Amino acid sequence: MKIEAIDCYYLSMPNILDTGDGSQDALLIRVQAGEYVGWGECEAAPLVSIASLVCPMSHSACKPVRASLLDQELNDTADINRIGNLVRENSMDLLQTDHTQSGVDIAMWDLMGKKLDAPVYQLLGYKKSYPKTPYASLLFGDTPQETLEKALRVRADGYKAVKFGWGPFGRGTVAEDEDQLHAAREGLSQDGLLLVDVGTVWGDDVERASQRLKAFQETGVTWVEEPFVSGALDSYRTLASMGGDIKLAGGEGCHNYHMAQQMIDHAALGCVQIDAGRIGGISICKRVADYAHARGISYVNHTFTSHLALSASIQAYAGLEHDTLCEYPVESQSLGVDMTQNHIERDANGQIHLPEAPGLGIRPDLLALEKYLVDVEIKVHNQVIYRTPTLPATA
Amino acid sequence: MKIEAIDCYYLSMPNILDTGDGSQDALLIRVQAGEYVGWGECEAAPLVSIASLVCPMSHSACKPVRASLLDQELNDTADINRIGNLVRENSMDLLQTDHTQSGVDIAMWDLMGKKLDAPVYQLLGYKKSYPKTPYASLLFGDTPQETLEKALRVRADGYKAVKFGWGPFGRGTVAEDEDQLHAAREGLSQDGLLLVDVGTVWGDDVERASQRLKAFQETGVTWVEEPFVSGALDSYRTLASMGGDIKLAGGEGCHNYHMAQQMIDHAALGCVQIDAGRIGGISICKRVADYAHARGISYVNHTFTSHLALSASIQAYAGLEHDTLCEYPVESQSLGVDMTQNHIERDANGQIHLPEAPGLGIRPDLLALEKYLVDVEIKVHNQVIYRTPTLPATA
Repeated sequence: MKIEAIDCYYLSMPNILDTGDGSQDALLIRVQAGEYVGWGECEAAPLVSIASLVCPMSHSACKPVRASLLDQELNDTADINRIGNLVRENSMDLLQTDHTQSGVDIAMWDLMGKKLDAPVYQLLGYKKSYPKTPYASLLFGDTPQETLEKALRVRADGYKAVKFGWGPFGRGTVAEDEDQLHAAREGLSQDGLLLVDVGTVWGDDVERASQRLKAFQETGVTWVEEPFVSGALDSYRTLASMGGDIKLAGGEGCHNYHMAQQMIDHAALGCVQIDAGRIGGISICKRVADYAHARGISYVNHTFTSHLALSASIQAYAGLEHDTLCEYPVESQSLGVDMTQNHIERDANGQIHLPEAPGLGIRPDLLALEKYLVDVEIKVHNQVIYRTPTLPATA
Repeated sequence: MKIEAIDCYYLSMPNILDTGDGSQDALLIRVQAGEYVGWGECEAAPLVSIASLVCPMSHSACKPVRASLLDQELNDTADINRIGNLVRENSMDLLQTDHTQSGVDIAMWDLMGKKLDAPVYQLLGYKKSYPKTPYASLLFGDTPQETLEKALRVRADGYKAVKFGWGPFGRGTVAEDEDQLHAAREGLSQDGLLLVDVGTVWGDDVERASQRLKAFQETGVTWVEEPFVSGALDSYRTLASMGGDIKLAGGEGCHNYHMAQQMIDHAALGCVQIDAGRIGGISICKRVADYAHARGISYVNHTFTSHLALSASIQAYAGLEHDTLCEYPVESQSLGVDMTQNHIERDANGQIHLPEAPGLGIRPDLLALEKYLVDVEIKVHNQVIYRTPTLPATA
């Protein structure tokens, strides 16, 4: 069968806040081939990814993403890989491509799972999917008191691991950051796992990062995530050598396999974090998970949006028994929750399990999404090259 | 003074061919602050870069590029760097940003040169600009005979160095590539400098690359460019160790400083090639040139478009006396030529010199560009967020 349609839907909260909350909009992708439909999601900047799907060609290595998808044969998992390579070759000089192709790749895996009647993790070669321990992913409060209250709340809600990130952290004085860390630890109590996400605010400045090491150690932080931008390998390596037991985590900024490989090889990471909605989809996630596993480095998903994205991001390491942690969005805007009919809920032990239904096992809630749909129209030379399509009646 | 306007103009040939010719379209950027105007150019996919300038915000680290530019103070060269960092921070999760910001950064340097009455290379700290030896940058012919004729033609036109790339090269048999290389060498005669650009067609496959090493050696190829995708550091390093005198060149795919640094540190390059229209503009080019120089690796521009882009791409290494080569487009479509009122022509010795006029010293030909201007309109929720502006009367 052939890919007959690629549709994309820009979804957004009515008001976007200037905070680190990545659940405020989404680009939902629908791929149809024969009688099957698959769904995927791209991370961030929906309008730009739409433009990359439909733009006029610049030259042979800068084609719109859609040009390498429509009419392609899609009969087995090898086709997904072949099509991904084709997109990367034909759109090499179109930078946005990797983010856009991520949603398409995820949708192709979902579709293939439905065709072959198997969950995606099985198509990836795993015999079983191990439960993961979700860590609640939260933004730091504006004050230590707010952070304390957030920590108390998620702890009371049964989370054993919590990640705080963004907000004011890393931008003010060392003392202010120390107060935030102690507040988080106090709220979590001594046996909770505390993770910290610095959101790259220190650029590649090891000095600013190292001033906080003592506080990270005193508050028993398990990992420090993205102290630096993706690619600042020397800075990561230097900080890791100074950090004692503190592990560094990073990788969400990687938008292809080689970038992730370099972080694993040269950044002295304890844990590589991959966003299926950015790196090129599940296909690339799996390559990175295999490589990290071979190098003895933990793999964890990066997810701050919907449960469609969550399912997609876990598939690649579902069968890695010892990579037990999983990022789990708990502060999503209503869009992130309303996006899907079903959700990946915690069990009595506080663990989560991937759906065993075919594909990703998560169904978009198309009726609920109606109110989030953003009308977009793009005209070139007075011809409409994109107009937001109507949401289909069934997923 | 403050940045008061950022305008962008999508320019295109009427028909875009499915070839590796990157001169078929362009995104021209105009920055205005106080009484000054500067011009820059982004590489490829103009519609996508326009979308990245004007799109709605997704969250605090995924803002439209324009949001970090308008109303910013722009009084000295330090401001250019500060604004670039602000853009990268505020649009970190918008992948297209680096390509878009490239044109903006170039325009800011052009503007600052006009304000401070100095060519850009002086603002970058160079006392003088050394002449460069242009190599004619050509696509391989469809047949060895065509390649031979192209080589004879540019040789007769006085070029001492020629680069052939793309076209059928690397995609067929080893014997076919050997025929192409021998045709190029024959046309150039024995004393011409022969460079080959593989355009990443071998992905990261060292085996396919190494099968051509003998022919590269027999035909006296000086460098083999982009045998692999940017970032396939291990493949580069392995091939370099097998290549004897053959140098590897690469780096045009890098879209930030750290990617270029990694290629210099880990890919065993002989020469790093940077496109000012992709890597983030002249500011980032200069950081890479400094780093390459300190590591004893040659720096060369990557340019396949207009002479505005050419001037921009040479500034960063204008003062490096021993980095003498320069990529020089000779097969541009009419757009690439018509883009500017003046051009960087070869002197009697076949060398080129950067203009000594303020800024980039190259003036867009706004009247000539009228016919290439592409009408674009982008609407979100029925509001026009971008419409192609009229070209101003004067540059």
